[in-house]
Amino acid sequence: MIIIMRSHVTDEEINAVKNKLKELDLEANISRGVERTIIGAIGEERSVHEESLQALSGVEDVIRVVKPYKIVAREWHKEDTIIDIKGMPLGGKKFQVIAGPCSVETQEQMDLAAKKVAAAGCNFMRAGAFKPRTSPYSFQGKGVEGLKMFRQAADKYNLPIITELMDVRYLDDFLKYKVDIIQIGTRNMQNFDLLKEVGKIHTPVILKRGLCATLSEWLMSAEYIAAGGNHNIILCERGVRTFEKAYRNMLDVTAIPVLKKETHLPVIVDPSHAGGKAELVPALSKAAIAAGADGLLIEMHPNPCEAWCDADQALAPDKLVNLMADMKGIVEVIGREF
Amino acid sequence: MIIIMRSHVTDEEINAVKNKLKELDLEANISRGVERTIIGAIGEERSVHEESLQALSGVEDVIRVVKPYKIVAREWHKEDTIIDIKGMPLGGKKFQVIAGPCSVETQEQMDLAAKKVAAAGCNFMRAGAFKPRTSPYSFQGKGVEGLKMFRQAADKYNLPIITELMDVRYLDDFLKYKVDIIQIGTRNMQNFDLLKEVGKIHTPVILKRGLCATLSEWLMSAEYIAAGGNHNIILCERGVRTFEKAYRNMLDVTAIPVLKKETHLPVIVDPSHAGGKAELVPALSKAAIAAGADGLLIEMHPNPCEAWCDADQALAPDKLVNLMADMKGIVEVIGREF
Amino acid sequence: MIIIMRSHVTDEEINAVKNKLKELDLEANISRGVERTIIGAIGEERSVHEESLQALSGVEDVIRVVKPYKIVAREWHKEDTIIDIKGMPLGGKKFQVIAGPCSVETQEQMDLAAKKVAAAGCNFMRAGAFKPRTSPYSFQGKGVEGLKMFRQAADKYNLPIITELMDVRYLDDFLKYKVDIIQIGTRNMQNFDLLKEVGKIHTPVILKRGLCATLSEWLMSAEYIAAGGNHNIILCERGVRTFEKAYRNMLDVTAIPVLKKETHLPVIVDPSHAGGKAELVPALSKAAIAAGADGLLIEMHPNPCEAWCDADQALAPDKLVNLMADMKGIVEVIGREF
Amino acid sequence: MIIIMRSHVTDEEINAVKNKLKELDLEANISRGVERTIIGAIGEERSVHEESLQALSGVEDVIRVVKPYKIVAREWHKEDTIIDIKGMPLGGKKFQVIAGPCSVETQEQMDLAAKKVAAAGCNFMRAGAFKPRTSPYSFQGKGVEGLKMFRQAADKYNLPIITELMDVRYLDDFLKYKVDIIQIGTRNMQNFDLLKEVGKIHTPVILKRGLCATLSEWLMSAEYIAAGGNHNIILCERGVRTFEKAYRNMLDVTAIPVLKKETHLPVIVDPSHAGGKAELVPALSKAAIAAGADGLLIEMHPNPCEAWCDADQALAPDKLVNLMADMKGIVEVIGREF
Repeated sequence: MIIIMRSHVTDEEINAVKNKLKELDLEANISRGVERTIIGAIGEERSVHEESLQALSGVEDVIRVVKPYKIVAREWHKEDTIIDIKGMPLGGKKFQVIAGPCSVETQEQMDLAAKKVAAAGCNFMRAGAFKPRTSPYSFQGKGVEGLKMFRQAADKYNLPIITELMDVRYLDDFLKYKVDIIQIGTRNMQNFDLLKEVGKIHTPVILKRGLCATLSEWLMSAEYIAAGGNHNIILCERGVRTFEKAYRNMLDVTAIPVLKKETHLPVIVDPSHAGGKAELVPALSKAAIAAGADGLLIEMHPNPCEAWCDADQALAPDKLVNLMADMKGIVEVIGREF
Repeated sequence: MIIIMRSHVTDEEINAVKNKLKELDLEANISRGVERTIIGAIGEERSVHEESLQALSGVEDVIRVVKPYKIVAREWHKEDTIIDIKGMPLGGKKFQVIAGPCSVETQEQMDLAAKKVAAAGCNFMRAGAFKPRTSPYSFQGKGVEGLKMFRQAADKYNLPIITELMDVRYLDDFLKYKVDIIQIGTRNMQNFDLLKEVGKIHTPVILKRGLCATLSEWLMSAEYIAAGGNHNIILCERGVRTFEKAYRNMLDVTAIPVLKKETHLPVIVDPSHAGGKAELVPALSKAAIAAGADGLLIEMHPNPCEAWCDADQALAPDKLVNLMADMKGIVEVIGREF
Repeated sequence: MIIIMRSHVTDEEINAVKNKLKELDLEANISRGVERTIIGAIGEERSVHEESLQALSGVEDVIRVVKPYKIVAREWHKEDTIIDIKGMPLGGKKFQVIAGPCSVETQEQMDLAAKKVAAAGCNFMRAGAFKPRTSPYSFQGKGVEGLKMFRQAADKYNLPIITELMDVRYLDDFLKYKVDIIQIGTRNMQNFDLLKEVGKIHTPVILKRGLCATLSEWLMSAEYIAAGGNHNIILCERGVRTFEKAYRNMLDVTAIPVLKKETHLPVIVDPSHAGGKAELVPALSKAAIAAGADGLLIEMHPNPCEAWCDADQALAPDKLVNLMADMKGIVEVIGREF
Repeated sequence: MIIIMRSHVTDEEINAVKNKLKELDLEANISRGVERTIIGAIGEERSVHEESLQALSGVEDVIRVVKPYKIVAREWHKEDTIIDIKGMPLGGKKFQVIAGPCSVETQEQMDLAAKKVAAAGCNFMRAGAFKPRTSPYSFQGKGVEGLKMFRQAADKYNLPIITELMDVRYLDDFLKYKVDIIQIGTRNMQNFDLLKEVGKIHTPVILKRGLCATLSEWLMSAEYIAAGGNHNIILCERGVRTFEKAYRNMLDVTAIPVLKKETHLPVIVDPSHAGGKAELVPALSKAAIAAGADGLLIEMHPNPCEAWCDADQALAPDKLVNLMADMKGIVEVIGREF
């Protein structure tokens, strides 16, 4: 930790910082420059908070030197994490596509959706039984009944299922219906109680990035899950909020190489929620592959115009088939397996 | 709802939209312009989703005409909501200051804090027993024990207490310790299950704005609580995330007059979390009053340098006393009571 | 144009809007809904300003139906624009890479840079003679002397040159040294006097996106150039400013497919200024190709560590050679020529 | 300057940094911590660029310790700058209101506007003769003829005039018509050639903040003007661009106390362009005063509905009179003169 003192700092102020550091079991290394005095704090800084130093008189700025996350950091775990889901790898050389509708609606819709997902050659299926909707007057999801429908539809095609958990009270149902990957949604990226609960089990977790979460905050949320003992974490970039109004969210493609350097966890991309329009999904999917993502989470609905939510962002089944064909070439040319 | 069709639209596409509108119980009013055809949908649009129209062929854009919120809208409820908390009004002519430490630490700290809050002339006290921390390695709050300490300290000075609820499983404890105002924090503004639970009780709720939530989304989250039956909602602006790095968050002072026009709910401001620095609290507090806020939520710690969290943003007790004196003039000059 | 009236609007207010529309040569189509009255304005709305309607009593919102740009819009010009630069096409099937150092430093540096650009197989060269620097104390560019050095170095390898124009007073020098493509930088995207001047000549223009410009504003700036008569415009996405601090700017990869739909102009990407780090250039370059960009603008310096500006974002010559090899496969697999 | 090395750094890498620092006339102070080695660079760092260090092998991050601006910094000039404009002070105890229409339209409009500005008790008048418009098809201003009209109208009431300069080629006209304060607009905050030109004269300059400029970049643009010799600079906060769509820009009220600490220059606020709606001007104006601004720049049009641009944000003359009355109390209660 580096403490930058204001110009015209007094010896008394410098001593107060030194004493505070001693309390925190850190050693002080003082260096007096022309305009500023700088104090380097040597020792384990991960559990120290900048604010307690920032509050001292004469302190201008406090800068953290080590990254606040540890278990999820590539610095301490060099090899890529590969998560095994019913024999299917996520992370590593193989590129995976997860597809399915926004919401579970009916058994028929789910049966048809599962058939289309499998037919397109995707290895995993997604669908929401519990839906986080901006409006209380919108369809809120089929709930536990939806989990049951989803399980039944997916089992016919041996597709592992991914679905969102919004409330700790439903975790038992998720375990009962053997949800293969639990999704923690954008709005819950910093629902720390929820993170702690999924940290206690071993079911893989897809952790979506918050709407304006920094990469560092996102990795800290992953660290919450990891600190509980569950290291089966997949990060999912899904676009962030900016000033641009021409489409829904801005896909942060730069996050992919940065995360790949910072963490050993698999990184996937949701091009459907990012752009918010089915017509943008192909370009964004290809960009994600080229930038180094490990997989995609795509919305596909057997009949988009009839979808109960996010109708405009779901691909029709034939469009998914075309996209899978288009993506194959790029996946292979960058040296990965499809 | 207005549907703007792409140029070169076909009659078939226009008819498909008309049919979809009929299904949704809306009437279509077609107006063919020079470059675009526009379809006005007449009827109750609040429960219709743009996306289901957006997904139709030939549709360029769908624009909502009525606001998606209703119970919280001033359009349907002209008078300001005034919430009575143990005989103390929040909203209306009286300007209220809520003060207290970031976290409950010890009984001694809370006793001293309560004394200082009362001495400064504040009518309400805040403190966190459950803390949403970015890092799993940070102090997570004293939990239920903290609620007890807080209650005991505040009761000595007849101060109603405000504290944050992060997890539905602790709601019973909040009721047991008779928390006077439940705070829903920034990270939980769209934790819809939590909103639904606090919508079922009658305890007043302070709903903080999400880190990059639009005013419309925020009002929709308030609508979640209101739709459950709890209309005792106070909105708290606390700064939003932007590109600026010179301070923590950008206080959205414009939100105050806009909210006052859009909703009848009281609007308060948290200058401590907005600026992130104690030295910015006075200027931001005064700006909030001048812009029309109904109250403030200020961090004060009996000994800021020793605070267990957010030490650099807490005011020392004497600074709070000075600020109260400074604010009095502005509150009165704009025609309110202090 | 659609005018949405406030609820409880009076007939007088509606008539005032009708009269205003008549003045503007627009016809009014009134549609009274349950909660709102909507007025559709039919006619040429491109030269009408929303604000003059917005200011009228009873008006809640004014929505533009047609796009404000016309010459640059694909709606009115279906085929891709292909710009011929000394026999080299920019736009269309061929994918082009422009490379070179941030700044012109010395004749030796430029000679070596040109050699390396040509050796890597790039068809165009970039370098700055006039530099927009945040600090007045930073190196401001070699100026006209730099243009001369650049011309001399590039001519040896028949490389068309791209360089930034910051001030209308230097346009004659740009013409004298036959700059092949004039770059209008990020900070000047809305320097309208400069846009008007480059609109009067026929030299192709690379128009970089402003730091937080919307796609619509950017296209309007292109329309400024086009309205003057110069239709040889290339749009360059170079990242926008957001809250993220892990890298410099956020490359807006979604802008590529959206622009391709909205405009017929070529779209290129600057991965060097976007990420701000040489190590991010390969991933961002590949993502741009996969998303449909027509070319790249890459910083390469013969000796990055000695560069006089932006040293950390320039590729070393061997890294550029490797990247060109890596990109070839992706360019071809998506059906374009390298 | 502090250089943070990557973990597992080699001695060779550390030596390379030391050598680079020596070249730059800086001394190295090496401190080896548990996880990171840190190198403090002691000496004059203001003319050194981070990137040249950042590009070296083994460097993780480079942190600047001293502020990059000097002439405009309060650190080196403690007292508030007070600018004298025809005997009227801007900065210091007196609070100033500048008012007037968006654009110069006709002599009659300007005569009436000047009369209303003076009648309301404002000491300065603003109006645009050259207009930066997003669309090339919008009214672009009356140009030099507008300067003449403005001068004539304002002289009748002894009002100093403020108007925007967009192009260096018109500076002579500005001097000819004795423009009292030259405004550099939002879109030109980083038009460095323009900044250099106004740095060479002595006419006071209002420098508006760029649409997404950080406070540091803004102060660096002021430093450009100051470095040329013109120290008569007034900073004008006018809202920044964010994700919020309920109003035009977000007024950054926090910038006021932060700037007041960082610089000795006067800081004024433009509530009209910030909110973009006349109805928001009173609340934003009062908030600006309360937060410590030195003045306001307000749009007032004798007949807003007929204004040739930005009609919806101009106050009508009677509304300005009311606002002046409302503001008086707040200005005085915070201890300033109106």
